[in-house]
Amino acid sequence: MNFGSDNWAGAAPEIIDAIARANEGPAPAYGSDELTARVEARISEIFETDCAVYFVATGGAANGLALSVMTPPYGMILCHEQSHVQMDECAGPEFFTGGAKLLPVAGGAGKLTPQGVADALAGFPHRPPHGAPGSVLSLTQATECGTIYSADEVKALCDFAHGADLKIHMDGARFANAVAASGASPAALSWRAGVDVLCFGGTKNGCLAAEAVIFFDRQMAQDFEFRRKRAGHLWSKMRFIAAQFDAYFADDLWLKLAGGANAMATKLSSGLAATGGVEVSYPSEINQVFACFPEGVAEKLKEGGAAFYPWITPGDPANGKMHRLVTSFKTTPSEVDAFIKAVADAAS
Amino acid sequence: MNFGSDNWAGAAPEIIDAIARANEGPAPAYGSDELTARVEARISEIFETDCAVYFVATGGAANGLALSVMTPPYGMILCHEQSHVQMDECAGPEFFTGGAKLLPVAGGAGKLTPQGVADALAGFPHRPPHGAPGSVLSLTQATECGTIYSADEVKALCDFAHGADLKIHMDGARFANAVAASGASPAALSWRAGVDVLCFGGTKNGCLAAEAVIFFDRQMAQDFEFRRKRAGHLWSKMRFIAAQFDAYFADDLWLKLAGGANAMATKLSSGLAATGGVEVSYPSEINQVFACFPEGVAEKLKEGGAAFYPWITPGDPANGKMHRLVTSFKTTPSEVDAFIKAVADAAS
Amino acid sequence: MNFGSDNWAGAAPEIIDAIARANEGPAPAYGSDELTARVEARISEIFETDCAVYFVATGGAANGLALSVMTPPYGMILCHEQSHVQMDECAGPEFFTGGAKLLPVAGGAGKLTPQGVADALAGFPHRPPHGAPGSVLSLTQATECGTIYSADEVKALCDFAHGADLKIHMDGARFANAVAASGASPAALSWRAGVDVLCFGGTKNGCLAAEAVIFFDRQMAQDFEFRRKRAGHLWSKMRFIAAQFDAYFADDLWLKLAGGANAMATKLSSGLAATGGVEVSYPSEINQVFACFPEGVAEKLKEGGAAFYPWITPGDPANGKMHRLVTSFKTTPSEVDAFIKAVADAAS
Amino acid sequence: MNFGSDNWAGAAPEIIDAIARANEGPAPAYGSDELTARVEARISEIFETDCAVYFVATGGAANGLALSVMTPPYGMILCHEQSHVQMDECAGPEFFTGGAKLLPVAGGAGKLTPQGVADALAGFPHRPPHGAPGSVLSLTQATECGTIYSADEVKALCDFAHGADLKIHMDGARFANAVAASGASPAALSWRAGVDVLCFGGTKNGCLAAEAVIFFDRQMAQDFEFRRKRAGHLWSKMRFIAAQFDAYFADDLWLKLAGGANAMATKLSSGLAATGGVEVSYPSEINQVFACFPEGVAEKLKEGGAAFYPWITPGDPANGKMHRLVTSFKTTPSEVDAFIKAVADAAS
Repeated sequence: MNFGSDNWAGAAPEIIDAIARANEGPAPAYGSDELTARVEARISEIFETDCAVYFVATGGAANGLALSVMTPPYGMILCHEQSHVQMDECAGPEFFTGGAKLLPVAGGAGKLTPQGVADALAGFPHRPPHGAPGSVLSLTQATECGTIYSADEVKALCDFAHGADLKIHMDGARFANAVAASGASPAALSWRAGVDVLCFGGTKNGCLAAEAVIFFDRQMAQDFEFRRKRAGHLWSKMRFIAAQFDAYFADDLWLKLAGGANAMATKLSSGLAATGGVEVSYPSEINQVFACFPEGVAEKLKEGGAAFYPWITPGDPANGKMHRLVTSFKTTPSEVDAFIKAVADAAS
Repeated sequence: MNFGSDNWAGAAPEIIDAIARANEGPAPAYGSDELTARVEARISEIFETDCAVYFVATGGAANGLALSVMTPPYGMILCHEQSHVQMDECAGPEFFTGGAKLLPVAGGAGKLTPQGVADALAGFPHRPPHGAPGSVLSLTQATECGTIYSADEVKALCDFAHGADLKIHMDGARFANAVAASGASPAALSWRAGVDVLCFGGTKNGCLAAEAVIFFDRQMAQDFEFRRKRAGHLWSKMRFIAAQFDAYFADDLWLKLAGGANAMATKLSSGLAATGGVEVSYPSEINQVFACFPEGVAEKLKEGGAAFYPWITPGDPANGKMHRLVTSFKTTPSEVDAFIKAVADAAS
Repeated sequence: MNFGSDNWAGAAPEIIDAIARANEGPAPAYGSDELTARVEARISEIFETDCAVYFVATGGAANGLALSVMTPPYGMILCHEQSHVQMDECAGPEFFTGGAKLLPVAGGAGKLTPQGVADALAGFPHRPPHGAPGSVLSLTQATECGTIYSADEVKALCDFAHGADLKIHMDGARFANAVAASGASPAALSWRAGVDVLCFGGTKNGCLAAEAVIFFDRQMAQDFEFRRKRAGHLWSKMRFIAAQFDAYFADDLWLKLAGGANAMATKLSSGLAATGGVEVSYPSEINQVFACFPEGVAEKLKEGGAAFYPWITPGDPANGKMHRLVTSFKTTPSEVDAFIKAVADAAS
Repeated sequence: MNFGSDNWAGAAPEIIDAIARANEGPAPAYGSDELTARVEARISEIFETDCAVYFVATGGAANGLALSVMTPPYGMILCHEQSHVQMDECAGPEFFTGGAKLLPVAGGAGKLTPQGVADALAGFPHRPPHGAPGSVLSLTQATECGTIYSADEVKALCDFAHGADLKIHMDGARFANAVAASGASPAALSWRAGVDVLCFGGTKNGCLAAEAVIFFDRQMAQDFEFRRKRAGHLWSKMRFIAAQFDAYFADDLWLKLAGGANAMATKLSSGLAATGGVEVSYPSEINQVFACFPEGVAEKLKEGGAAFYPWITPGDPANGKMHRLVTSFKTTPSEVDAFIKAVADAAS
């Protein structure tokens, strides 16, 4: 009963096989190989537009490097107060950007709104050169609270932000889950809605270590290559990241993996909601469930071998009570059933 | 009727005279001169403890350099959401520290409380190495809202923060005003209450360009000298900063200047409060008054030659209505009377 | 006939197999898994001392992160003027360290000497806080010129450097080749000779993407974990780096792979030296050969499908003439023979 | 007999008087005052072209900030191996630029040549994104060895460097001395010869603390204002730097001060050259003399109260023997005569 995180699962077998297959013969280093070129082109197809694509191995690298070319080092990045860039990257964005400021913005269920962003800007007066000038709005799709922005919601945020001279970064560590859940196209959830740069994750959804930074405006990417190199994120054997994405996109594997994980969370969420005393906190739109258990239940579940963690929300008086449960492409219906039963037993 | 800022005033005549006097004969460069050594020692006397003292020319330099030796580059600095380090230094602390994160914390009338800091920490979970670990609590004395922390309030904050493994930085750009207003000793408002490093300002209170970074623990200062140099903040002709502080401390000039500015704000505040339709927002404990004027009054005052600016508060629905009025050592009672009369005329 | 670089080769089959095997069941993320702990411990055995070990995916990350905990941001790192940290990491060490200065030092055949380091220090006066204070001596083992330092040579350098208050960093991207070639133990070539931190490479020698930063003094490592995280170099699925090293160390695979590559370079070097008109520049102690071909030969070889690159040496009047040939664990004797024959044909 | 440095002298009386005069009435802060605007415009007149001008208080700040807008953080700045930016700013340029690499280049008598720069570039191969790409050539006028570049020499360097896609930075801490000594116009020694950004010093030549960063291409200056602010180098009472330059330019004071200091060095140099056993190392073109004294003489002179320092040259076997003597606008002929006599006495 492992709901600790989607990165506890290993890689999908197709991904491992692709790595093994890519290991034939020599290949030019540092991304000059044919496989890398082919998979980069495949991403342009999937997104229905010409993209500049750069592979890295971690989501923190993708976010930090992307932001570093989107903001001057004295700029200000607005992001959700619970976002990964703010809370989970050990000040990585500040490091990669050379000292840009992150302004945390509140918003229900992990989501920002145009009004919320407008209020944050109004409270941080633009008096150049005194206040750090706003440079980027960072969105997370799907969000840290397991919710998703509709294409219209993304568009409304991007329209507002572009009007305020902000570029749009999207942390898409779970973008696949958002696409699978919403049925919207990758294009609709990104550049067609106004996103400038998307960090498209593979690792949490069955890859071994594979993330793609996708620039919908090639101009914006022009010094990315240098920044990736100096940060130690240019792989010499780049084909081994490309190979993962190659398999990821074949036969829509990425959407199957994400859809499977999402379905398990839906099942888990409805099962828990039907269990007396359990409160499910947010709509489970992707592969995460947030739940408050009755007193003592969480401890009993952990003693029984279940893995999951408490979830902290800034300013929430319920802090310490809510837990996050994450499903993955490996989660099985019986694992979900067993957990629900364990909750019911512990609560009774 | 100049209430734009205390730095619109020039320097006190005693300060200019001291600079001229210091210009006799040669002196070793970079702070190795006798005057610098003497004034550094004088600061230890004033604070009743052995201090390591470093002079710089601006408050932004003092804060940024002080913080850079107090936090690792991946650490988190908690500060008031309206503090100068957060809102007015163009991401300077992020620059000086090599990318530390600033976590803005709310608090009424510009003041932090132990509970507010505790809540902020609770909402930013400590899961090394994911979240940036808290490293510093930055306080401002007197605050940006013209209020002051009592020695007991500082102590309560420092006690809590030290218990949470945070070091205490105090932005004392208007520390002189706080001392003059409270009657508390410099020691009582700083190290005796637990402050580790104080940025002691002179510029806003009648100096030309003079700030002192005061370390109450010499150990903490050990690489300050290198950081000041590489940031271009080590003056070759250091005696000209030292000379300013020499005059500043002579005959308690610093307290006389601050006391004078404070008195003018008190007079202004009570005069405005007695004027129909004007709302004074915070207790005017130092040399600042925050006021909401009736509709149209601010515009008329500016047309009449008065200088002052709107004051922005994060999340305040009254944003755009409140104005800040700052008095200085040069402000005269008749200037205050004239302004109050102008307000009354404009409002009638 | 591929002598472009050792990273053109893919991974050894044992490494790929180990990755596939590690993909069983869930595992805690971010290096908390059992395999990671076991392989870290294995490195302490191989080096015959207790080590703090951190895995990353690239050599640039290993070097930059290691240096970042060894120097203050205003410190000076002395390195060979041809070293990878100086010439091939796009100012990565400057980035990771927050702005430390690299001082390039000359030395024959890619090697530094105590006298060379002493001269460099003497020419960069220590006048705190004006000159950046020397903090680290960075050595490369094996060197960029395909030579190796004996244990005694490393010790002489470390002794001198420690006496000058420098810590010792060793870039061991090809450390395996040095061990295999010299027959000296890993301990003898590192901590027993005085090395403080070793960046132990796997990628160039048959791993997919695996490097280990090894601290022989745990105290020095204390904030490495935070720096790795904020730089995006902490893998969530860390077991997949650990698995590579697990296979790498099993049955001395690492030494077999390196020994094989070394042998091919020895063969290539002696074959070329016996070919009229070819000048071999350095002793081929590991898996690299540096050669000057007769006029026009390099072009003909490339037309014939051979891959290799020119090698640039600062200040060398022969720049443009010398080429570097790199063998790998995949290089075969017949590939070497074919190349030597092609050279002879082209030169005749 | 004070020849320690030109910054041991205080400020010229005209400078102090101007500061006192500028202290009348209020003035808008942060450089929005009339005096600042007027003096900025005056610099455009002196340089016979429209310039963007920014005042700061130290030469290290001027250099670091100027470079930070001229190079990407992963770029490479070529500079003389004895330049102030390389040897005397405690890795300040690396700090301000966010980690750019400095490549020290050799050259006789403190001067770079196009060939020397070409050789340095040839020895640092341009293989994007591996090597840090060259971005800036930094020249010092007058040089650290007391020599000057003619306008033609500057032009030849700029032409070569622009052809190699480098921008030209000129550290003009002693630019006044170069103008006074050469008789060339400020324009001829800077933008007409191809210089992009000049750091124009006042402090070493009789100002208290005043440097101007002069952009001959306004486009290049566009984010300077933000960088100056976040680095704590924007003075609130900016009029006090402007006032110094106002007096500095009035009646050609700057050239009179520099010419006076130069004349004293000429006198000192010829006097020492005529003294048995003393070797003068470089032509004394500005206010510096480099001399090797007979054994034991330096010690005797210091015992007699003379102040001066040894001068270190990278790779010079004579290190430890050469001393630098600096004259200032305050140096008198009798001081020079007394020193020459003391040398002769000590040497006899």
